[in-house]
Amino acid sequence: MNDATSGSGYVERNREQDFQRDSNYINDRITADGAGGWPVEPDRYRLVVARACPWANRSTIVRRLLGLEPVLSMGICGPVHDKRSWTFDLDPDGRDPVLGYERLQEAFLARDPQYSRGITVPAIVDVRTKSVVTNDFAQITLDLSTEWTAYHRDGAPDLYPERLRDEMHEVMQRVYTEVNNGVYRCGFAGSQQAYDKAYSRLFTALDWLSERLVDRRYLMGDTITEADIRLFTTLARFDAVYHGHFKCNRQKLSEIPVLWAYARDLFQTPGFGDTTDFPQIKEHYYVVHAFINPSQVTPLGPDTANWLTRHGREELGGSPFGDGTPPGPVAAGEAVPAEHGPGGIGHR
Amino acid sequence: MNDATSGSGYVERNREQDFQRDSNYINDRITADGAGGWPVEPDRYRLVVARACPWANRSTIVRRLLGLEPVLSMGICGPVHDKRSWTFDLDPDGRDPVLGYERLQEAFLARDPQYSRGITVPAIVDVRTKSVVTNDFAQITLDLSTEWTAYHRDGAPDLYPERLRDEMHEVMQRVYTEVNNGVYRCGFAGSQQAYDKAYSRLFTALDWLSERLVDRRYLMGDTITEADIRLFTTLARFDAVYHGHFKCNRQKLSEIPVLWAYARDLFQTPGFGDTTDFPQIKEHYYVVHAFINPSQVTPLGPDTANWLTRHGREELGGSPFGDGTPPGPVAAGEAVPAEHGPGGIGHR
Repeated sequence: MNDATSGSGYVERNREQDFQRDSNYINDRITADGAGGWPVEPDRYRLVVARACPWANRSTIVRRLLGLEPVLSMGICGPVHDKRSWTFDLDPDGRDPVLGYERLQEAFLARDPQYSRGITVPAIVDVRTKSVVTNDFAQITLDLSTEWTAYHRDGAPDLYPERLRDEMHEVMQRVYTEVNNGVYRCGFAGSQQAYDKAYSRLFTALDWLSERLVDRRYLMGDTITEADIRLFTTLARFDAVYHGHFKCNRQKLSEIPVLWAYARDLFQTPGFGDTTDFPQIKEHYYVVHAFINPSQVTPLGPDTANWLTRHGREELGGSPFGDGTPPGPVAAGEAVPAEHGPGGIGHR
Repeated sequence: MNDATSGSGYVERNREQDFQRDSNYINDRITADGAGGWPVEPDRYRLVVARACPWANRSTIVRRLLGLEPVLSMGICGPVHDKRSWTFDLDPDGRDPVLGYERLQEAFLARDPQYSRGITVPAIVDVRTKSVVTNDFAQITLDLSTEWTAYHRDGAPDLYPERLRDEMHEVMQRVYTEVNNGVYRCGFAGSQQAYDKAYSRLFTALDWLSERLVDRRYLMGDTITEADIRLFTTLARFDAVYHGHFKCNRQKLSEIPVLWAYARDLFQTPGFGDTTDFPQIKEHYYVVHAFINPSQVTPLGPDTANWLTRHGREELGGSPFGDGTPPGPVAAGEAVPAEHGPGGIGHR
């Protein structure tokens, strides 16, 4: 997503100074039957992400767990963006090698020259027209699970099991409003009162999750689902960013035993830690949010080696991928930069 | 002290964007022999402090450990100040009951109508002329130990033993430059490079202190000295403020085992925890430093109840007050506000 941009150009708040997330998306869908004009097709689309962004991180995890790398290519924006756009500054000449763009904004303008809403990641771009098909982050991952099945790898897990969907939607909705958005509600609060309420809501939800996960290996039971992915990307950023930068500081995640063990269990599972880039995550938040951190100095801490410590959650049983198998090695060219250590671990 | 004010009006930095502390003080001394014109005398002076300020906190601890409350009264400024001055906004009518002032600045101007340097706490004010005698925080506490001996309580500890002074000054100097000022050097760094260097210096010093305290109950050995007091006031503010607000975030203090046990040992000793006011500490830093925290929102965390957990340092032997005794109860009217919980513990 794009924290600095929204419909009105910046962080929006209501009268109580609560943070409101812009949720105007280009919400076309890419479907197996192509009914809406965007059929699932190999090599036709490009997923554009930024490693820093929790909303985009969902799609990089799901794409990897399902083995869609050979059919859906990926462009990676740098961690820092300005009000106008995410940029492809990590690429050698500052241009995405497939789209040829310097700025993701170009793909939005190719779709709609009058486009004035958020330039957000993840976005799926039609490679032929170089225009955005969708930036509806919540639908993108579900469609990767349900519409792209013809191209799933052998042993791909079912991240969105039909029999669990009703309960999943309840859980994911609460995780979305209270946790995924809850950390932003704390950090972007424009008044002490708005912050106090946001803090209380966030930690109430984290206590609920801790309770739920005491005897469940994963949110929906014995195997990993989309619900876990959606929670993980916020937890992965908690101690590195949200604890200090967003003042979510009742405890560090590493001081919340059940949730911390759960997060490490996922982190140490292929697809999670190996798509997490702590240095880019920290740089993104601390540099982009100059209205919270005017010096734009990025903290050197915390040490992230603790993500690799034993979690002990195997004792709860379960099997991360159910009847499926873990994904293989990270695709060539897509590894988190080596200088960041295993899975992006290490100091900037 | 006064973080927002210095000789030139604000935080000073050198060309490398390092933080430089203003150290121009009114440095008269109050002595037993009165040679400089300011003799030690009961009821003649008023110590003006703010509970929030680590430099002033030194003097509130020393005054209490030595039992000087009956002869040296204390005025308490509120946690928040503007560029001009600390204010007596905690007093019922917003005026110090002894000096009659609304702002500490008045006592500096009474001393020197042209005074243009920092309005800082601690300051000792001559009650008759209502003018500042000294705001030299480093000398104030040493003089309370060495010049005010005629008024020390029975059983007062020797916080500045002659035989240890050479080594104490080495230790205190390193604690001052690397830790007391080191946290500010991180928080006030004006560039990434200045911050990176400051962070490294700070944690190098904390590692040195951890090592030193592995088998020593206190910094100088078996009993509490001025050196411990000077370290304590920074440690007490570490997780509440410096970890997040100043980006001193390699670990929380509570994640540095030896130093954390040492800090709790002191906190649980009369004179330390009972002069520590976490809510005022947090409010001070987060509200006054709008250049670091533009929203001026004050975090609700961390939970400070962990300061009261067992520390186990008694096993190292030693005796906090040597041949002396602990101080009695906190003087009437000087307790940290009850709504803040024991020793100021609790949320704002």
